Amino acid sequence: MMMAENGKGLGITETQYLTFAQPPEELRLESGGKLGPITVAYETYGRLNVDRSNAILVVHALSGDAHAAGWHEGDKSPGWWDDMIGPGKGLDTDKYFVISSNVLGGCKGTTGPSSLNPLTGKPYALDFPIITVGDMVSVQRRLVEHLGIEKLLTVIGGSMGGMQVLEWVVSHPGMVRSAIPIATALKHAPQQIAFNEVGRQSIMGDANWNGGNYYGGPLPAKGLAVARMVGHITYMSDISMAEKFGRRFRSERGHDPEKFGSDFEVEGYLRYRGDNFVKRFDANSYLYITKAMDYFDILGDKELREVFRGVSAKLLVIAFKSDWLYPAYQSEEIIKACKLAGVEATYAEIFSTYGHDAFLLEVEEETHMIKYFLKKVSGHLEVKTPNEAPR
Amino acid sequence: MMMAENGKGLGITETQYLTFAQPPEELRLESGGKLGPITVAYETYGRLNVDRSNAILVVHALSGDAHAAGWHEGDKSPGWWDDMIGPGKGLDTDKYFVISSNVLGGCKGTTGPSSLNPLTGKPYALDFPIITVGDMVSVQRRLVEHLGIEKLLTVIGGSMGGMQVLEWVVSHPGMVRSAIPIATALKHAPQQIAFNEVGRQSIMGDANWNGGNYYGGPLPAKGLAVARMVGHITYMSDISMAEKFGRRFRSERGHDPEKFGSDFEVEGYLRYRGDNFVKRFDANSYLYITKAMDYFDILGDKELREVFRGVSAKLLVIAFKSDWLYPAYQSEEIIKACKLAGVEATYAEIFSTYGHDAFLLEVEEETHMIKYFLKKVSGHLEVKTPNEAPR
Repeated sequence: MMMAENGKGLGITETQYLTFAQPPEELRLESGGKLGPITVAYETYGRLNVDRSNAILVVHALSGDAHAAGWHEGDKSPGWWDDMIGPGKGLDTDKYFVISSNVLGGCKGTTGPSSLNPLTGKPYALDFPIITVGDMVSVQRRLVEHLGIEKLLTVIGGSMGGMQVLEWVVSHPGMVRSAIPIATALKHAPQQIAFNEVGRQSIMGDANWNGGNYYGGPLPAKGLAVARMVGHITYMSDISMAEKFGRRFRSERGHDPEKFGSDFEVEGYLRYRGDNFVKRFDANSYLYITKAMDYFDILGDKELREVFRGVSAKLLVIAFKSDWLYPAYQSEEIIKACKLAGVEATYAEIFSTYGHDAFLLEVEEETHMIKYFLKKVSGHLEVKTPNEAPR
Repeated sequence: MMMAENGKGLGITETQYLTFAQPPEELRLESGGKLGPITVAYETYGRLNVDRSNAILVVHALSGDAHAAGWHEGDKSPGWWDDMIGPGKGLDTDKYFVISSNVLGGCKGTTGPSSLNPLTGKPYALDFPIITVGDMVSVQRRLVEHLGIEKLLTVIGGSMGGMQVLEWVVSHPGMVRSAIPIATALKHAPQQIAFNEVGRQSIMGDANWNGGNYYGGPLPAKGLAVARMVGHITYMSDISMAEKFGRRFRSERGHDPEKFGSDFEVEGYLRYRGDNFVKRFDANSYLYITKAMDYFDILGDKELREVFRGVSAKLLVIAFKSDWLYPAYQSEEIIKACKLAGVEATYAEIFSTYGHDAFLLEVEEETHMIKYFLKKVSGHLEVKTPNEAPR
């Protein structure tokens, strides 16, 4: 990980909220349903320049949120991509205006299954409609327009974030100058669907899940924790696990005296991660968001050469050698689709032992490539901001 | 898969039972505890020859049982390795006497946590002691001795079966002439422990598990089903899943009308496999057996060159290219340990897209190698049986 140099960072940042799609002007969803009102939680870092050409949209993965960078009051750690966003960093807030929002269906301020259903005054639970990556992007488009931006300099994100990036490029080709999909895929392969399905079955198998109606009662904590444990295994690699844990026992006592307790460090780690996740994530959001990932298929019935037809954005596609959840060959398919459509695309496969987590951990390598790419697509080194006073 | 030629097979086979370790002569376990009486369920195929030199012990994986070959009355499918065991097959019952038994801790006739505790008259549940792969092998040794066999021609098994094979070679070097560990490891790496731990957490997180005391009441079916689903993902490969399922929907209706139902074929497959497993396997056995796998470490504090010191058995080590649960490098470590100890060992890495399941599916390739190996180690083509009458 690259740490901020000399304590230079964004300092305190704040989440803001935009509400739109008030009935009868609900958002029409890809499933055919309607949803409204919709609140979207977002943060911005840096300043929009005079010609509104320096805006970067950061889109998050499964469990992310709008708080991508800087610190909230009382935080023990900064936003989830603070290593990447800030003055002088890969997404340099001295030059760019960075926007980050929580996805539709989420549980961190944007409307999702745990939000109140205006028709009943109670949480939607499973009355929340099925949402897609396309719907997530529709909400982001409203936010971007609200901020007065007609064209984004870039859209960037990893994993499910990368799916949103691809969706932006294809659905709103006139609104993106460039795009950086990281550790992602044109669509999920059956193995990726299978791991998500295990997580969903684990949640829905928890007696507390109760058909999704657990709000105000006991949470399906054990089911959600197991889902997260499965996730964590897939985010790491065989090698990174071996390096991190070996076969070390958790304590000097050796085996846990309790039967089927945590003997090995890796077991304790997974339990800790699982239990922690329950405190910060809604189980129904996990169901809706993983399903959106599984439904995502930018290819559909089209042939590969047709996917990016008419796209003028330039792409930087990044993959990681030890990522077995989103293997490099899936990124190579994105590149192939670009080449077939005559879209300018650069491919970088970064050597890393971190597995899928590498997209959050290999910041130094990414920074190098992203800075160079942004310099190239923005066409100038300095972007004038309305107020040149030092921050 | 290779099918039996001309319907030639073992026909009806039968499970037998041996009970030993009656108090006060209980079996001493590696954990320090004692267990008795112990019943072991086993089957035998073919005939023991006059000099008792043609016995082969087959050892099973996590969910296997004694019924390795032939048909039980009313069976819809034969034993789990029927493709490998029978007249003319890889383990040719015209030549060899094949023994297969259910492991200690199991739930298919051998004493395990669902067996009655003689002290209480109720199932052991979590009063069953922690068992190890070494204990499983101790029970098999008693069975082999009971059958009047002093030295096995070979011990063969895949996955956890391979661990038992290695344990036999190291713990009873005088009792094995050769050994065939398939798709296995000297010890589990953290990723392998992690997948098992997720399964255990899923079972123990099921409210019906009730601290292991569910016998006679509702079963922890959902927890066990999720554990099995995770297992199945790890037994297949990215490629074999893509070949088997693609992104096909389950029905012509397209998306399942039920929210979070099974849209994709792979989801329906996993649910089916999970639900099916619950009907035939005991959740507590799953806990004990997976823990035995995780504890297994034939290396321990020893150096690699010391593991097989004093071993005179010849080894045939088999691995599969697409097996990511027990990757080929783990089999290469076994070979390396053999070479360092001067043990004669052959290594075969079979090309297959089936992942870990390959050890059950790539029968033709395995048959070829195993037949050749057995011919070499038995030193003669024909083994005289007491009665030469055609079967």
